[in-house]
Amino acid sequence: MKHYLTVSDIESLPDWVDEAIALKKDPYQFEGLGKRKTICLLFFNNSLRTRLSTQKAAMQLGLDVMIMNFGNEGWALEYGDGTIMDQGTSEHIKEAAQVVSEYADIVAIRAFAGLVDKEKDESEEVITGFANYATIPVVNMESSVGHPLQALADAITLKENEIKIRPKVVLSWAPHPKALPHAVANSFVEMMRMQDADFVITHPKGYELNPRLTQGCQIEYDQNKALEGADFVYVKNWSSYSDYGKVLSKDTDWTITEKKLGHAKFMHCLPVRRNMIVEDAVLDGKQSLVVQQAKNRVFSAQIVLKKLLENI
Amino acid sequence: MKHYLTVSDIESLPDWVDEAIALKKDPYQFEGLGKRKTICLLFFNNSLRTRLSTQKAAMQLGLDVMIMNFGNEGWALEYGDGTIMDQGTSEHIKEAAQVVSEYADIVAIRAFAGLVDKEKDESEEVITGFANYATIPVVNMESSVGHPLQALADAITLKENEIKIRPKVVLSWAPHPKALPHAVANSFVEMMRMQDADFVITHPKGYELNPRLTQGCQIEYDQNKALEGADFVYVKNWSSYSDYGKVLSKDTDWTITEKKLGHAKFMHCLPVRRNMIVEDAVLDGKQSLVVQQAKNRVFSAQIVLKKLLENI
Amino acid sequence: MKHYLTVSDIESLPDWVDEAIALKKDPYQFEGLGKRKTICLLFFNNSLRTRLSTQKAAMQLGLDVMIMNFGNEGWALEYGDGTIMDQGTSEHIKEAAQVVSEYADIVAIRAFAGLVDKEKDESEEVITGFANYATIPVVNMESSVGHPLQALADAITLKENEIKIRPKVVLSWAPHPKALPHAVANSFVEMMRMQDADFVITHPKGYELNPRLTQGCQIEYDQNKALEGADFVYVKNWSSYSDYGKVLSKDTDWTITEKKLGHAKFMHCLPVRRNMIVEDAVLDGKQSLVVQQAKNRVFSAQIVLKKLLENI
Repeated sequence: MKHYLTVSDIESLPDWVDEAIALKKDPYQFEGLGKRKTICLLFFNNSLRTRLSTQKAAMQLGLDVMIMNFGNEGWALEYGDGTIMDQGTSEHIKEAAQVVSEYADIVAIRAFAGLVDKEKDESEEVITGFANYATIPVVNMESSVGHPLQALADAITLKENEIKIRPKVVLSWAPHPKALPHAVANSFVEMMRMQDADFVITHPKGYELNPRLTQGCQIEYDQNKALEGADFVYVKNWSSYSDYGKVLSKDTDWTITEKKLGHAKFMHCLPVRRNMIVEDAVLDGKQSLVVQQAKNRVFSAQIVLKKLLENI
Repeated sequence: MKHYLTVSDIESLPDWVDEAIALKKDPYQFEGLGKRKTICLLFFNNSLRTRLSTQKAAMQLGLDVMIMNFGNEGWALEYGDGTIMDQGTSEHIKEAAQVVSEYADIVAIRAFAGLVDKEKDESEEVITGFANYATIPVVNMESSVGHPLQALADAITLKENEIKIRPKVVLSWAPHPKALPHAVANSFVEMMRMQDADFVITHPKGYELNPRLTQGCQIEYDQNKALEGADFVYVKNWSSYSDYGKVLSKDTDWTITEKKLGHAKFMHCLPVRRNMIVEDAVLDGKQSLVVQQAKNRVFSAQIVLKKLLENI
Repeated sequence: MKHYLTVSDIESLPDWVDEAIALKKDPYQFEGLGKRKTICLLFFNNSLRTRLSTQKAAMQLGLDVMIMNFGNEGWALEYGDGTIMDQGTSEHIKEAAQVVSEYADIVAIRAFAGLVDKEKDESEEVITGFANYATIPVVNMESSVGHPLQALADAITLKENEIKIRPKVVLSWAPHPKALPHAVANSFVEMMRMQDADFVITHPKGYELNPRLTQGCQIEYDQNKALEGADFVYVKNWSSYSDYGKVLSKDTDWTITEKKLGHAKFMHCLPVRRNMIVEDAVLDGKQSLVVQQAKNRVFSAQIVLKKLLENI
């Protein structure tokens, strides 16, 4: 693995999950690995879990950590090839990526989708720009189209709560007042396709995810039917992909309730809008895995950083 | 002590002050205590002294430090119970507090009073929310109604400058162009009530602090009378408590001058408005303890963190 | 050396350059020097290279690092003597500088020119204020009129690429859409005056730098003539000094091209506007030293911090 940009960079999901679970029991066992090495975390967008968990993971590996809020602490970046830079952008990604590579051994980047221009979002100019021009490994801390550290944390959480070889896992859309990116849902789908599971995606019509990613996946527009017999219900809002970035529905009939959940475990990447995405009773109840998922963000990041450090 | 939320969490003021003074002589003597442990500092408001001194205290205990400006780096928090989160807030304090608890061993929080809604400020929703839902110790780095790290630093400074068993200590209001919170004054009063001192509070009428806190304290509306024979004059502006958050006076007759100060030592928590709160000659003179107070912020934080670490 | 405020604080340029080059080969050789010591980096303006390279240099010396974006995390500072602080500023530089001195062993400061009021910019109120009132060494991370860490990194880069005893070095102005400060150009000139070189400055009429700094330097208004036989071309935009802060020309005839460059090496401090300052072919070609210059920022900072630490 050269970079960790998408779920497909995971060399063996079951092995990585097992290693992460072992690491969780003894988080400082590879403390020497990052000694005298530095990771730089670059945030183009807000973050709570990703910021703290990636930092924590790095510290547990003995790495020095440098954090920048690129948007307001650095310079506006240019991504175009051959641009005459006489407008608002001050620095080209080519220089930025090369320069950061001189100061750090690994760079991790968060840059959300703008949800206005589908083609631009899918080009992943920030993270792809860094991957192209940096001379060090690049880690995706949520890009326009993927959130592979979250998906790996979710795989760890599924494994820790395993009750049968082939569980039924449902990815359900739920309502939200604002337009949200597809990154978390995309990476969850990609990760589930590496698992042996009865995997069902449910959402209102018009909310189909990128068909390239869901190819061969079971899609069920009737949420109740989809949830029948579920072992895990992963809930997430996303905006329309076909009518790009639009909020087509805020239908609270899709809100997850205790009744709908049945005996299943509840999963969400957080932050979560209470009583929109899911009712209080579920989050405050024993079937919620959301805090465990958040904790596992440390170990998904740590396993990725460990793999990268071993290759440097 | 489970958390350090108010001055009343100090188990023994004289013991803690003595320990802090000892620590100041050898700040790294407990460097091993925080090893492989992490403190997270969450700022909902600006800070200079608190940010640097708490960080420094943590580093001297060997703690790893993670810092977040929650306002612009994280998500807008919801505090209401049962809220349907279809408006501006993205994450509930319940999740935020639980999640931070998975990444850190101690969390310290700064969240000022809004000075608009007295009941809301007194409910201390941010720090109380964290204390309720976090599973780790919470430290108050200035909340709506208290600044107990400052008060403890002030107690250390009083002790270091002790000239008699029962000094006369005056807390004097002074003018300021903007409405300021009551937190520093409140905690100073609470701390003084644990001391053997001739303690007098002086301010214009209408500036009475929360009567629950000043119960039994001597209040003198004539500043000159109050200052007579003072050994220490602690100066601070605050807005009206009864006419909540209002600036009722900017009367510069209340500005502290060399003449008014007499032989007393001058104290202020900083930042201080020169020639409004106090004239230049006092701050630039030998009776000012403000820099010593600021330095003691390191040791008040360090003694608190040490106590908390010993209990983890 | 008490502080590192300007290029003239360099005690011996050739010695420091040699030491920095040695340090680059073994960056952690003085890791013990900063142990239990702290540097505080205060940013009043944006930064990428300076922020990361200074932090990296400090970590390689074993220093603990505290970083503050003073503008939005701290308090608005007052610099005036005797001011009645009843307006927008909350804290006087006198207190701020003294207080930071209690928490750190070295303080480094970035505060750009405003380019509106020449006299104010030349008074260097921020960095001079800190130098006057701090009780610890102050490092200039780019002030109104100088960027001595950049100039030292440039000297290291010149030395590493040395081809003859007395190279021809040209400092050329180039066009930019916005008004930029003179700091980088000023410090480069000061540094070149300590070198044995055929040094030429070229720019359109009206772009003369502060004559006090360029006194005795060769100034050539014909860029082509200036570039003839150059070994190193250092390119930089700056606004007018005589018509202070104004953009008098955006003439792209001054843009550096491969043809103009000839066999010379290309230097720029970054960030650089592609196809305004210099065409893509130069930056993407083998004669560009910009990434090496950026890397050398670590070692210019590290040699300065090492010298200061040895004196503490």
